[in-house]
Amino acid sequence: MTITPPALSVFESLESEVRSYCRSWPAVFDRAQGARLTDEDGHSYLDFFAGAGSLNYGHNNPVLKRALIDYIERDGITHGLDMATTAKRAFLETFENVILRPRDLPYKVMFPGPTGTNAVESALKLARKVKGRESVVSFTNAFHGMSLGSLAVTGNAFKRAGAGIPLVHGTPMPFDNYFEGKVPDFLWFERLLEDQGSGLNKPAAVIVETVQGEGGINVARAEWLRALQDLCHRQDMLLIVDDIQMGCGRTGGFFSFEEAGIVPDIVTLSKSISGYGLPMSLCLFKGELDIWEPGEHNGTFRGNNPAFVTAAAALDAYWADGQMEKQTLARGEQVEQTLLAICAEEPTAQFRGRGLVWGMEFTDPARASAVCARAFELGLLLETSGPQSEVVKLLPPLTITPEELDEGLRTLARSVRETA
Amino acid sequence: MTITPPALSVFESLESEVRSYCRSWPAVFDRAQGARLTDEDGHSYLDFFAGAGSLNYGHNNPVLKRALIDYIERDGITHGLDMATTAKRAFLETFENVILRPRDLPYKVMFPGPTGTNAVESALKLARKVKGRESVVSFTNAFHGMSLGSLAVTGNAFKRAGAGIPLVHGTPMPFDNYFEGKVPDFLWFERLLEDQGSGLNKPAAVIVETVQGEGGINVARAEWLRALQDLCHRQDMLLIVDDIQMGCGRTGGFFSFEEAGIVPDIVTLSKSISGYGLPMSLCLFKGELDIWEPGEHNGTFRGNNPAFVTAAAALDAYWADGQMEKQTLARGEQVEQTLLAICAEEPTAQFRGRGLVWGMEFTDPARASAVCARAFELGLLLETSGPQSEVVKLLPPLTITPEELDEGLRTLARSVRETA
Amino acid sequence: MTITPPALSVFESLESEVRSYCRSWPAVFDRAQGARLTDEDGHSYLDFFAGAGSLNYGHNNPVLKRALIDYIERDGITHGLDMATTAKRAFLETFENVILRPRDLPYKVMFPGPTGTNAVESALKLARKVKGRESVVSFTNAFHGMSLGSLAVTGNAFKRAGAGIPLVHGTPMPFDNYFEGKVPDFLWFERLLEDQGSGLNKPAAVIVETVQGEGGINVARAEWLRALQDLCHRQDMLLIVDDIQMGCGRTGGFFSFEEAGIVPDIVTLSKSISGYGLPMSLCLFKGELDIWEPGEHNGTFRGNNPAFVTAAAALDAYWADGQMEKQTLARGEQVEQTLLAICAEEPTAQFRGRGLVWGMEFTDPARASAVCARAFELGLLLETSGPQSEVVKLLPPLTITPEELDEGLRTLARSVRETA
Amino acid sequence: MTITPPALSVFESLESEVRSYCRSWPAVFDRAQGARLTDEDGHSYLDFFAGAGSLNYGHNNPVLKRALIDYIERDGITHGLDMATTAKRAFLETFENVILRPRDLPYKVMFPGPTGTNAVESALKLARKVKGRESVVSFTNAFHGMSLGSLAVTGNAFKRAGAGIPLVHGTPMPFDNYFEGKVPDFLWFERLLEDQGSGLNKPAAVIVETVQGEGGINVARAEWLRALQDLCHRQDMLLIVDDIQMGCGRTGGFFSFEEAGIVPDIVTLSKSISGYGLPMSLCLFKGELDIWEPGEHNGTFRGNNPAFVTAAAALDAYWADGQMEKQTLARGEQVEQTLLAICAEEPTAQFRGRGLVWGMEFTDPARASAVCARAFELGLLLETSGPQSEVVKLLPPLTITPEELDEGLRTLARSVRETA
Repeated sequence: MTITPPALSVFESLESEVRSYCRSWPAVFDRAQGARLTDEDGHSYLDFFAGAGSLNYGHNNPVLKRALIDYIERDGITHGLDMATTAKRAFLETFENVILRPRDLPYKVMFPGPTGTNAVESALKLARKVKGRESVVSFTNAFHGMSLGSLAVTGNAFKRAGAGIPLVHGTPMPFDNYFEGKVPDFLWFERLLEDQGSGLNKPAAVIVETVQGEGGINVARAEWLRALQDLCHRQDMLLIVDDIQMGCGRTGGFFSFEEAGIVPDIVTLSKSISGYGLPMSLCLFKGELDIWEPGEHNGTFRGNNPAFVTAAAALDAYWADGQMEKQTLARGEQVEQTLLAICAEEPTAQFRGRGLVWGMEFTDPARASAVCARAFELGLLLETSGPQSEVVKLLPPLTITPEELDEGLRTLARSVRETA
Repeated sequence: MTITPPALSVFESLESEVRSYCRSWPAVFDRAQGARLTDEDGHSYLDFFAGAGSLNYGHNNPVLKRALIDYIERDGITHGLDMATTAKRAFLETFENVILRPRDLPYKVMFPGPTGTNAVESALKLARKVKGRESVVSFTNAFHGMSLGSLAVTGNAFKRAGAGIPLVHGTPMPFDNYFEGKVPDFLWFERLLEDQGSGLNKPAAVIVETVQGEGGINVARAEWLRALQDLCHRQDMLLIVDDIQMGCGRTGGFFSFEEAGIVPDIVTLSKSISGYGLPMSLCLFKGELDIWEPGEHNGTFRGNNPAFVTAAAALDAYWADGQMEKQTLARGEQVEQTLLAICAEEPTAQFRGRGLVWGMEFTDPARASAVCARAFELGLLLETSGPQSEVVKLLPPLTITPEELDEGLRTLARSVRETA
Repeated sequence: MTITPPALSVFESLESEVRSYCRSWPAVFDRAQGARLTDEDGHSYLDFFAGAGSLNYGHNNPVLKRALIDYIERDGITHGLDMATTAKRAFLETFENVILRPRDLPYKVMFPGPTGTNAVESALKLARKVKGRESVVSFTNAFHGMSLGSLAVTGNAFKRAGAGIPLVHGTPMPFDNYFEGKVPDFLWFERLLEDQGSGLNKPAAVIVETVQGEGGINVARAEWLRALQDLCHRQDMLLIVDDIQMGCGRTGGFFSFEEAGIVPDIVTLSKSISGYGLPMSLCLFKGELDIWEPGEHNGTFRGNNPAFVTAAAALDAYWADGQMEKQTLARGEQVEQTLLAICAEEPTAQFRGRGLVWGMEFTDPARASAVCARAFELGLLLETSGPQSEVVKLLPPLTITPEELDEGLRTLARSVRETA
Repeated sequence: MTITPPALSVFESLESEVRSYCRSWPAVFDRAQGARLTDEDGHSYLDFFAGAGSLNYGHNNPVLKRALIDYIERDGITHGLDMATTAKRAFLETFENVILRPRDLPYKVMFPGPTGTNAVESALKLARKVKGRESVVSFTNAFHGMSLGSLAVTGNAFKRAGAGIPLVHGTPMPFDNYFEGKVPDFLWFERLLEDQGSGLNKPAAVIVETVQGEGGINVARAEWLRALQDLCHRQDMLLIVDDIQMGCGRTGGFFSFEEAGIVPDIVTLSKSISGYGLPMSLCLFKGELDIWEPGEHNGTFRGNNPAFVTAAAALDAYWADGQMEKQTLARGEQVEQTLLAICAEEPTAQFRGRGLVWGMEFTDPARASAVCARAFELGLLLETSGPQSEVVKLLPPLTITPEELDEGLRTLARSVRETA
């Protein structure tokens, strides 16, 4: 496939230098359907990035699209602040019936604003308010968002430096397997908590991703998550699972923590919760934590009703039974087998993952970039993650067909080969 | 009109106590068009709140709706991260041609995430990065958002307390007319800056709203804004105008600061920028400030392409000529005349405003609430603002007809009378 | 008098560049008695600086010297941590009988460490602990010390920059007469406190000097101090008077706030409390505020027993009756008359002061330095203060004779004349 | 020995509840000489606490006493701010000749104020200024002082809580042997520094005690200190050794870090530097770090000249040759043998130490208190340390005779036995 250099002029002249993905993927995209995007020159791309996990059901999923257009056509409420609307009610009822009740989860639902970082900010506020403490523990290579509260519990030094002020009130602890099994889990964390002379400000909460996406596809084991929950209970800290990227079925179950059998005190959801790539987020918390005063946290777009419509439709379509989870695990198996084969031939790479999120780590970060660049030339959208962008991240839509998945994996294999 | 108590059960049982507007307006809204909403029982409400300024062109504006549905129908990109897309290009070109160039504004455009607080966070980050200083000055009764960075420059004590940590790095200064003319403008601020012993950490920037919406419809005079700009230039501080609520034509011109003839260094836009109530925001800044590194600030939903489509359509439809501004000023005149008449009969109230944002302040805050409650019973959506919710805020869609406006103002007058 | 350049070599080669006074006064001092110092070359200097207020009773006061030597000779406890000692008991009893009881002051006494900044740090800690709030209000051009807690409530930008971290949790307010009477007292401060939307974090306490020494000899009026006390009571803030430089009789009465008739909640004393220039400080607070846990604040040298001995001797010798106060006021009168005469001939200067602390402010800061430099050549130790070092500060020992005072004032007058 | 309850009334009625040592040792002390104190009732106490390390040469050491009285008698400068004085010069020359030059240490000398916490505050300021970073790493169970800057790098939770504000800008790391050898040294610290995604703000400096006194007599091995110095060099962090309690010969050599062969970038000294228990402290740093501006850090009592006199006398008397170090190591041996014997019979205790600082840790913290209480009854002053006050701390004067040491150790053994 030959790609004509696109006319990027207005992007280059008018848009800020802060733009990033458009630099890796120098095309002007126009349309999309399912796992494929098409640029304005008619080139087609297979999507293994899925809007950084926001498009678990694919681009412009027809079921959701129908519901969305119907809603717009009939002049349903579009912008609803936090007013009660029929669309919000339908979403809440569906979320309760399809997600919370079957899993026996005791959560209240908060609409904290439509983005992930809004949800994280609200979770941190609530935890601090409930416990009356300012400190929060996060983990190495965590990513929780770019507003100041979320950024303070995010690991990436480059992004932290963007704050322009010292980021405080957070302390990092080692994520699972940070020392490759050489140090007992939570040894350091628990000692600091137990030792009255440790110098650690007692945390209100711990915030964790079950699989760190931006951090390099670092997968926490179920027993590590259970031990973390136990530690939180013993030490009177709230457990916040940031399920923004790994929730909504990415790892198999609707919530990524289901497999571990834990029940976090607070959960954040965003990205794929609307199902259609529309901005929406949720903050869930145990009922006894709901000590918010009316309006104590607010936001203009926390009632994005078209997103409620597609969100309810997605839950109905994909989560009323256990098919979605089974299919994701099957697709994950397919990925794993291929990565096993690729890595068998490529000694500088190793892979890891769960459900439909996988990473291939290269010894040389430049190689990971080269693989993604070559994949783009071959019509596959792939991105890197990890502290040095050393991990090629596989995040296809959950609704991808086995054939599409196979096609993408073959392109990946070829890209690895051709960049050796 | 008699309103049957709506079935709020799932909202009450499942949604967090943090919800607020739905308490003032106990209805379940279903549809909306222009300046009117309809609840599920068929009651109709005239909207003098306009999504807190997010619906300047009314609910489900037909011109934008057509463009939106067309875009969805043809499977245009929905979720685009910060990839180049045809929809984004169309928006950027339109924004440049219709807004920036005619006003000779030297701005680069950043998509910082889809909400106002994302835009404010990015503006503060950039100002701190450019100046290498941490401190920012805001004004009494400012409102800039609920994530930690924005909240630190927000005045409201109740919302600040929600942070759960001390909010620092910001210092409040008196907004225009804070002392009712008894103190020269900027006397205190300038003395602190000039006095090397004042104890004020030298600010990187000043952030200001030209009209404080949440703060109680406090209108800054043009000469005050010009003096502020001069002060910023003299003292090497960046001037940030937060035009999230007052921009997009609310005060007449597209930017609320045009009337004053100033050119802020950084401008934030959100709320009505998409035109349709979809989450979208912009951070604009002078080209020489664009020292961002690629990806130094990011966010999953900063490429909400359906919003780009409606945004471009709105600019084309309403801002290609000067009609919108004229119409808004005419409507504002209509509001002013009525408020003059109401306040002539109501000695405990006074009013103020500009363009189509007006406030009626009551001596007794309970009265302001009572007026809004009565208005709701009479089918008019009105909210309070101000530090003690003592101001009834009028924020109708800019596209409201003179008849609708008159109807709403008569309902307001009746509500004032009936709560005396 | 001709001064041979002293041999400063070891100071220059070994002592840090941070040294300052030795640069203004390039002599190596050897002995001192009363109001006079002698350098190693035998030159004599009249002291109008008095150890920055630490030598109110003159250098090596014979009464205190006798008590001190006796104590050392008899092997009295020198270093006592916070153990009970006979010397500490004698001091406490004397302080109670001579100072607290006659003034009906309800204070507990804390030994927070031997320096002023220790006392300020303990005062701020206690205020925050009692009120459960983090914020403290200080005043423009305040000076409270150089450790981080004290520095955060100090105004001088140069010294603040030395912290290397943003200094937060403090907000400056205008000191008395900051706007030369053009703005009502406390207008800004009180509005911020009353306005729930002001953005001011509710302060735990206000810390104030009755006369700002380092800040440029800014004298607060008694009515301003009373109004401040009233404001603190109305707004539930603790009033801390930092009497480190102005206490121990500098302004006439033992405490500088006596004249205003106020009773601060917390008072810090240091500098001249030992009487002999030995490191010692006190933190005094109303009994009901004494919620310290044992050892919650400590410090190695908080039991400097030789200082307790000289402190008790000084109280006995100078404060058992009202003579000291009368004499200070008389000496102050003498200073005032002379300054009046000097300023009558020097239109670029104005003066202000109280008791035996006076300042001459020059329009041109360089002139103030020149006056001090010339005075040094003429054998008089004088220093500048104020944000731009524009104020010549007169701080002679309280025990200076009228003749010595006259001599110094004549040297000052000559220095002013000769630098015109 | 029977002790009559002393008359503590003025202490109880007037002194703050914050007092602590006087509660463990309910006597009113009057005189002291060498290793012994005498209370007002004539009871004698052997001192195994030595002013928390401030009396390394014993109480009222006759050599220093002579020099001190001579100086006072001849009216030497008492209070000298940072003026050049003959006493300061004598101290600086002696310090250079006796301490710095023989050890080939490249330090400039700063007088930051007379207490340990002044020295630590100045060290932290300088490190932040030099590196332009705000973060500092400290260690578990560190103690560096009670003013805000020092407290932020102190471990004890009880003392930290006294701040009344969140203590930030510091991160604790595990001190040597924190995991009893189960984890490689600096594994966690170095990973955080090397991992660009770790979330650790890059530190300006690391502050460490070679032996943690307050923290429970935790002794860092020489190789650990060397590895720490290497890490600091590799990672561009300054190494600050806080030698306030362990310097001045406590561990054998004049500086406690000599044995490890390291050369810290910055060193703090206080406690025994004056030799006589007078308030004095030093901050030493490599010449190239001396970027202070004149007066950027100051303090009223940083020129405590009587302390300079006793300090110079102590250096001359004890450090002109290697006798002191040898004697301390010999005395240490004597302590170690006894502790070995005591612990052989007491299975719930273990001991550790170096030079003349030793600790006996009991499984049950109450036992440690009981031992000290019984020792007091038997005429021996002993204190606990450690996060739970579980360690009996032995800190006799270095000048103690073998017989006195033996007497004290026998009393200790008896106290251990009698509290079993």
